[in-house]
Amino acid sequence: MIWLNSDYTQGAHPAILQKLAETNMEQTPGYGEDVYCEQAAELIREVCACKEADVHFLVGGTQTNTTVIASALRPYQGVITASSGHINMHEAGAIEACGHKVIALAGTNGKLTAKQVADYIDWQEGDESREHIVQPKMVYLSHPTELGTLYSKQELTEISRVCHQRGVWLFLDGARLGYGLACRENDLDLPEIARLCDVFYIGGTKVGALFGEAVVITADELKQDFRYHMKQRGGRMAKGRLLGLQFLALFEHGLYFEISRHAAQLAERLKDAFVELGLTRFIDSPTNQQFVVLPDAVLKKLREKFEFEYWERVDETSSAVRFCTSWGTKPEEVEALIEELKRQTKCEG
Amino acid sequence: MIWLNSDYTQGAHPAILQKLAETNMEQTPGYGEDVYCEQAAELIREVCACKEADVHFLVGGTQTNTTVIASALRPYQGVITASSGHINMHEAGAIEACGHKVIALAGTNGKLTAKQVADYIDWQEGDESREHIVQPKMVYLSHPTELGTLYSKQELTEISRVCHQRGVWLFLDGARLGYGLACRENDLDLPEIARLCDVFYIGGTKVGALFGEAVVITADELKQDFRYHMKQRGGRMAKGRLLGLQFLALFEHGLYFEISRHAAQLAERLKDAFVELGLTRFIDSPTNQQFVVLPDAVLKKLREKFEFEYWERVDETSSAVRFCTSWGTKPEEVEALIEELKRQTKCEG
Amino acid sequence: MIWLNSDYTQGAHPAILQKLAETNMEQTPGYGEDVYCEQAAELIREVCACKEADVHFLVGGTQTNTTVIASALRPYQGVITASSGHINMHEAGAIEACGHKVIALAGTNGKLTAKQVADYIDWQEGDESREHIVQPKMVYLSHPTELGTLYSKQELTEISRVCHQRGVWLFLDGARLGYGLACRENDLDLPEIARLCDVFYIGGTKVGALFGEAVVITADELKQDFRYHMKQRGGRMAKGRLLGLQFLALFEHGLYFEISRHAAQLAERLKDAFVELGLTRFIDSPTNQQFVVLPDAVLKKLREKFEFEYWERVDETSSAVRFCTSWGTKPEEVEALIEELKRQTKCEG
Amino acid sequence: MIWLNSDYTQGAHPAILQKLAETNMEQTPGYGEDVYCEQAAELIREVCACKEADVHFLVGGTQTNTTVIASALRPYQGVITASSGHINMHEAGAIEACGHKVIALAGTNGKLTAKQVADYIDWQEGDESREHIVQPKMVYLSHPTELGTLYSKQELTEISRVCHQRGVWLFLDGARLGYGLACRENDLDLPEIARLCDVFYIGGTKVGALFGEAVVITADELKQDFRYHMKQRGGRMAKGRLLGLQFLALFEHGLYFEISRHAAQLAERLKDAFVELGLTRFIDSPTNQQFVVLPDAVLKKLREKFEFEYWERVDETSSAVRFCTSWGTKPEEVEALIEELKRQTKCEG
Repeated sequence: MIWLNSDYTQGAHPAILQKLAETNMEQTPGYGEDVYCEQAAELIREVCACKEADVHFLVGGTQTNTTVIASALRPYQGVITASSGHINMHEAGAIEACGHKVIALAGTNGKLTAKQVADYIDWQEGDESREHIVQPKMVYLSHPTELGTLYSKQELTEISRVCHQRGVWLFLDGARLGYGLACRENDLDLPEIARLCDVFYIGGTKVGALFGEAVVITADELKQDFRYHMKQRGGRMAKGRLLGLQFLALFEHGLYFEISRHAAQLAERLKDAFVELGLTRFIDSPTNQQFVVLPDAVLKKLREKFEFEYWERVDETSSAVRFCTSWGTKPEEVEALIEELKRQTKCEG
Repeated sequence: MIWLNSDYTQGAHPAILQKLAETNMEQTPGYGEDVYCEQAAELIREVCACKEADVHFLVGGTQTNTTVIASALRPYQGVITASSGHINMHEAGAIEACGHKVIALAGTNGKLTAKQVADYIDWQEGDESREHIVQPKMVYLSHPTELGTLYSKQELTEISRVCHQRGVWLFLDGARLGYGLACRENDLDLPEIARLCDVFYIGGTKVGALFGEAVVITADELKQDFRYHMKQRGGRMAKGRLLGLQFLALFEHGLYFEISRHAAQLAERLKDAFVELGLTRFIDSPTNQQFVVLPDAVLKKLREKFEFEYWERVDETSSAVRFCTSWGTKPEEVEALIEELKRQTKCEG
Repeated sequence: MIWLNSDYTQGAHPAILQKLAETNMEQTPGYGEDVYCEQAAELIREVCACKEADVHFLVGGTQTNTTVIASALRPYQGVITASSGHINMHEAGAIEACGHKVIALAGTNGKLTAKQVADYIDWQEGDESREHIVQPKMVYLSHPTELGTLYSKQELTEISRVCHQRGVWLFLDGARLGYGLACRENDLDLPEIARLCDVFYIGGTKVGALFGEAVVITADELKQDFRYHMKQRGGRMAKGRLLGLQFLALFEHGLYFEISRHAAQLAERLKDAFVELGLTRFIDSPTNQQFVVLPDAVLKKLREKFEFEYWERVDETSSAVRFCTSWGTKPEEVEALIEELKRQTKCEG
Repeated sequence: MIWLNSDYTQGAHPAILQKLAETNMEQTPGYGEDVYCEQAAELIREVCACKEADVHFLVGGTQTNTTVIASALRPYQGVITASSGHINMHEAGAIEACGHKVIALAGTNGKLTAKQVADYIDWQEGDESREHIVQPKMVYLSHPTELGTLYSKQELTEISRVCHQRGVWLFLDGARLGYGLACRENDLDLPEIARLCDVFYIGGTKVGALFGEAVVITADELKQDFRYHMKQRGGRMAKGRLLGLQFLALFEHGLYFEISRHAAQLAERLKDAFVELGLTRFIDSPTNQQFVVLPDAVLKKLREKFEFEYWERVDETSSAVRFCTSWGTKPEEVEALIEELKRQTKCEG
């Protein structure tokens, strides 16, 4: 069975396991106050070209989104997201559990536009009853989005401008950031993201680590007492060095970019094959999540050899599905899928 | 100046003030444990033909919605509403502040359909990742809605069936309930509402009282420890008898229905005049809120003599506005508006 | 039956009812944005000699405490109180429901000392694990306290200094403020309180109003967006003028001070009688709540004619009880109690 | 430098690292729905002799306490703890952030008594104003406590009886459970704990794992929808198998008990040495945390070679400190400490 259903089915890149093993019996202070976290934070500041940023390490995405958002908002403030955003759909109400409204705007392929954001903020601010309406104080983007799409440099720059003109924080969820930065259509990089956003995170869980997300805070006002928030939300790992060590392994020799590029190339290979085979892409994603529409009969056959994710029904006889590549995907696995698709779609034809 | 902008611009019906004055120097226990609250609750049980219901009195609508919803849900559960619902738009995130997601579905004229509700609940329940998605456990309707529209008996019956088949609570916000029950198109009554809903409230603030909402809980599971929730949400009034006395005045001789009918008739008079004058109604509301589209030039003139609520821009030269009648509106005020509209729209033509 | 059990058993001072009646059919904007609220706020700023203060009106004490505290704290911050404080004991967890720890320190007769407060703040700030400990960011005092006791000017000045040196807000709950200011042992006044505290409230519910508390915010940082907080906590009354009107009645001709003095004098008369009769005071309260220890046999007799509050058992044959005077207590009611006590204690003796 | 300051300074027992390495490139479903979590849960049910228990894996202690408590309580309910309890002192208000009061009772050496618990519950239930007081609905114990002390079988049985007679949940925090069960004074075992408690957890983070706590839920009512709560509190690890694998390693061949015994024996060796040297124990702890009073001059010397935790000042010239043993402590490290203490205390004498 070949697993292409998600990007977190395996453990960690061997370099990470090795680092954990090498340092296993060392003794260090807890809660992220060790030398490895310090080194990893410094490395991340460097790759982000942002010397003044605060860097903190958390275990997973929902925890990170919750901690960042809850730390930035006052009780009557909410966070704007595309309705497909992870915080709106797949965190079991974690943001609301901290007391904040998730203000969901209809996205296009998972993305918001600067105009949409500006219009909403201006509408609330201008309303006579504004004190009865949740005040939007943060914009949450994911990059890549839940649908694998990307913001261009221009798009992100415009959203950033809209936010900052209005005193609204910009937060970028980078759970799959590596896979976005490494794909051929991308025109953003970490320094640009650090410059445009007030806070963002570099995802480890889906990009080679056992677990871990590195939060980068560039806005001074959001830095204060962040560790209190982390503790309160259950996000200060006792053996915090496990996080520092993993990000050290990912960033000390560029491993993060290398394995991201690996996954991106395999996704591009797959995408090119879809085009070649004349398959309908459900969403035109440039990143490691590829969405394609296939006849149900083909899917049934595919399921014998492949794990993939059913997305949604398209019409009576066909459905959209998602294939993911990751740091751990082997080229031959992607080739096997392409071969099978060739065979199956030929039969269909 | 004639005020038709909302239904809470005045004090209370004189009968209510009189009752407060008569009992003013009596001494009673606090927090709603007095004989007047008891009598008012009993009266309400009678008019609802629901002997087993629990009846509690709260001060205002947001407080009532918050207390009811927070008392009914577990942390990972949310409440479904039309996106125009008061809890979604105009409570400054009060529900989210209690930790719960407001699940906003696109309404039609402020209303949800049974199918819409069923589809949403079934989708969440059927999703593989359902434990990552907020569980819908309550449906919130307002009747009349924010847009003045009403559920028919059949519509409410169907929504009730959908909810109860799926173990989901049905909560009806009756901030303007009197005005709905009293209008000519209505085919619901209090006993029917009590039978179909698990919890609802009879609004006093907008229907003759100084303030006050009477919560009627028919579902046994929702009755437990409700007073604890009231206290925690700041909703147990020290001199609770003020609430009991007001509802006593409203219900002991049918005053609630009488003054509601008064407002409904004036609204119907206004609506008929709109039709007669060939004005475009923005929403076809059968209740005390009337929405009409008028040229901006006319609105400018009207504003010299009338208070009304600007709703939204319709096109470059005209806008939708809202006129409200209430228990305190005088027939001559409505006639004055009609006369003015006649004059203005003639000028326009 | 003579009721001396609490200070909220009756309606309102007649001047208040009259004002409500006189203005009843006037039409005003809602939510506290009317001219009466404006006038009342201005009057309060004057009596507090604090032109720059923001004044807001809320309905009851728990709502007020919740809104003020939730508006001032970040999620990881807590509020220090004497363990007998209302927010710790009698608000059903309203503060915690907003996410904040109530940090209860052992009080002495319901009071905290400046040293106690300083020591706690310094301990947390100095602890190596301080990021794991709730950060104290507000001190909550009630004046008079739950036990009727008062802070002297010197005590309040010292607590204020301790707070402000450490960047901690000082909040004074004045649910019974009038009764404190009016008693013979008091050396504080409203301007002094406004100068020493960052936020406090002047209680109406227990001092002549039907309901209502006037929040006075002197610290600029706490003023921002307070109305959003009020709305979110269910505390913006639709017919907000009812609050403005009541405080107008209380403050336009000094009624608040006059009726407070009335209650204070009756309490002092009662206290002097306790001393004269040789009764043991349970707490030496200078204000309208008088706590005395009586033999259970005497209490049984008293109960036939008087309502009072059982406080706690003192020993096998005697208990502490509370008598309250209020704006509505008649001198003859207090005399009747004193007569009865004389009779009963003579019998006992 | 020899580190005896805490029990989470090192990585994991080598058997755990090995298991992670062996399975690293396997592909499994996420979020704890893999075969390793299933096997580990089954093993834990076996060692607890509790076939019907639900077992879930979380990452850390604060997260576990928060998720368990928030899942069990309604908004107006609170959890009783000794005031030294972790949830009261060292979780930055995580429980309050979920809306619940932590009801702190004065403990004795970190422990509560059955009488104390019963008295508190009965007082609240019996109070006339009970609806204004947070309802105690759960008792939280840690075993061992924060001070290293243990409940005896009889004590735990009595507390369990008190809770269950009153419909109150009993929750046992077992962050250091292994070290408690393995010490010579202990008379409890896992089946007994599972029988007496409604929910408890077996700590991995401090007992040989990289991280991880295994929650065992025996009360049916607490089982429902627990995974939703986990997700909402950020506690469903994407690569959940990492938790399953670690508990598998700990329980498949009794490693958990073996390494706990190792730490317990070293602690006992240390404790015996304290007695022999005539040192004053600050608390008489039977487990892996040993508290002793030493002259400040001795501490200064010790600090050159040893890491330990400063606890509190005892008098002008001496202080209490904590030494911890763990699964990773070497016997020679403890011997070195004993030697040094001998040397230092002789000098002193």
